[in-house]
Amino acid sequence: MLEFFEDIAKELQMVEKELSVVVETPNPLLTETSMHLLNAGGKRLRPALCLLGAKFYKFDLQRLLPLATALELIHMATLVHDDVVDASLTRRGNPTVKAMWGNKISTHIGSYLFGKSLILLARYETTPLISIALADTSVNMGEGEIQQIAASFDVKQNLKDYLYRINRKTAMLIASSTQLGAVACGAPKSIYYPLYRYGHGVGMAFQITDDILDMVADQRELGKPIGSDLRQGIITLPVIYALGSARQKDRLKELVAKHEKDEDEMQEAISIITGSGAIEHSFELVGKYIGKAKQALRELPDIPTRLTLNLAADFVGIRKY
Amino acid sequence: MLEFFEDIAKELQMVEKELSVVVETPNPLLTETSMHLLNAGGKRLRPALCLLGAKFYKFDLQRLLPLATALELIHMATLVHDDVVDASLTRRGNPTVKAMWGNKISTHIGSYLFGKSLILLARYETTPLISIALADTSVNMGEGEIQQIAASFDVKQNLKDYLYRINRKTAMLIASSTQLGAVACGAPKSIYYPLYRYGHGVGMAFQITDDILDMVADQRELGKPIGSDLRQGIITLPVIYALGSARQKDRLKELVAKHEKDEDEMQEAISIITGSGAIEHSFELVGKYIGKAKQALRELPDIPTRLTLNLAADFVGIRKY
Repeated sequence: MLEFFEDIAKELQMVEKELSVVVETPNPLLTETSMHLLNAGGKRLRPALCLLGAKFYKFDLQRLLPLATALELIHMATLVHDDVVDASLTRRGNPTVKAMWGNKISTHIGSYLFGKSLILLARYETTPLISIALADTSVNMGEGEIQQIAASFDVKQNLKDYLYRINRKTAMLIASSTQLGAVACGAPKSIYYPLYRYGHGVGMAFQITDDILDMVADQRELGKPIGSDLRQGIITLPVIYALGSARQKDRLKELVAKHEKDEDEMQEAISIITGSGAIEHSFELVGKYIGKAKQALRELPDIPTRLTLNLAADFVGIRKY
Repeated sequence: MLEFFEDIAKELQMVEKELSVVVETPNPLLTETSMHLLNAGGKRLRPALCLLGAKFYKFDLQRLLPLATALELIHMATLVHDDVVDASLTRRGNPTVKAMWGNKISTHIGSYLFGKSLILLARYETTPLISIALADTSVNMGEGEIQQIAASFDVKQNLKDYLYRINRKTAMLIASSTQLGAVACGAPKSIYYPLYRYGHGVGMAFQITDDILDMVADQRELGKPIGSDLRQGIITLPVIYALGSARQKDRLKELVAKHEKDEDEMQEAISIITGSGAIEHSFELVGKYIGKAKQALRELPDIPTRLTLNLAADFVGIRKY
């Protein structure tokens, strides 16, 4: 758990328990794969933000638990589906479900977890905004993923394409998570709108940081090989910046567009990117989104949770894993 | 369209239109793949049953359209995911999305279509039974698919395992489809329970027939290669019966358990199965489920739709494709 989530530590423990109850099934293969996913950990960022958002309005844990659990299940489902399509064999330093059980299982486990989240969400029938927001988010996540595939190895894509994609792939679910806890507790728009905007800023910053780390992180800390996006043809912000401004941008274009890159070519591409100022430039955009997130916070009541969310936003900008 | 669906032909046309509106998106790859799926056709069995079920109680087309459309989307989503995992390259005689665009796209298109169905279902917030029933069905479908994978090539599985699986994989969504149209129009249990039981009988019969056709159909009519289940290790009813009763059952056991079967081995296995009486025995079970479906119909008001549903049940037993 991240340390600034300490004031909801007990609640997050209950989410953890809910998660293991939810994935219990008489099917041993299903239980085994789901438990593997649960035990692989993760920051539980979405449940945490959901709980913290609700602190701004009549916090009701019993009302929040199914939602917080469902948000993590949706996130897990997309991770498993990502593993299918990205052919990556480790995540968070652990072998992926795909690596252990193959594509077949991953596809169905993803859908199964998503289905489980729907069962939990069905409890919010009196708050239709929740199911509408999450249905929209799911569709947009799919659109983001498909745009990413359509645009892979395409060196002509621009910043707008990238922002469209990471908003859908990542930021919308984080923004919904931050907003929907408060919504579930009956908060008015004056509370849940700023929470959405906060979550959006944090989500965008989070994904850009992820994309930077894929270029520069310590492989052991990151838990997966460096440059894996680039190898798969996924063109992230540092690459887009470098394609526009690096001295050797023509060479970079050639390398990025190449479907099978050997180790030397990967090293060359990464060194052109990191030497071009693209990483620093990308961090500037992270900073802008964190600034937007913090600005949204100012519209919220000044309770201790506001400080926690402020710290969480800062953490996104400096995290190394 | 199947001819006994003539009295809802106009309504089914409207579902068709809804389907093409729903999958419209600014993303060209996404539109192309979704339209490919739509144009590949299919019987639209689930929307048809949904509309027909509603004829037993205050039929309200505007109320039914989103649901009927969502049911077909859920079905399409599972087909696309099946294509990913089964590695089959044609369906209904057309190349699958997987064959044309690869695994990556298929996984996300499936989730995208499923998400689109959720947006449609969010309109039924005053009828929580609909979202609960379909959330349960989705989870059960996932469990069925995973059990199928876990049990592949396992010659020790029995009739109970098979029935568990096809209920989840196929029958539950058909039963829900038949029931939920009436539910959406406000029908009482005395209407929607028999509709569910009818749909369950038809759904079970439908899947068993599918599994029989995989052994005996004319490849051109079926639109996919014969014996594809067996080749992938999926053990269907005729195989289970033959493993229990065929004279050469030990040889069959050997063949079925073998992961890579050559053409001669496939032919040998199919001829042991078809020569064992297993096909006739399987058709008997189809007959039993159709009988159950028709029995459930008798509890419903005697309107012309009841005759249509009776004909639909008979069709399932004699279809050749």
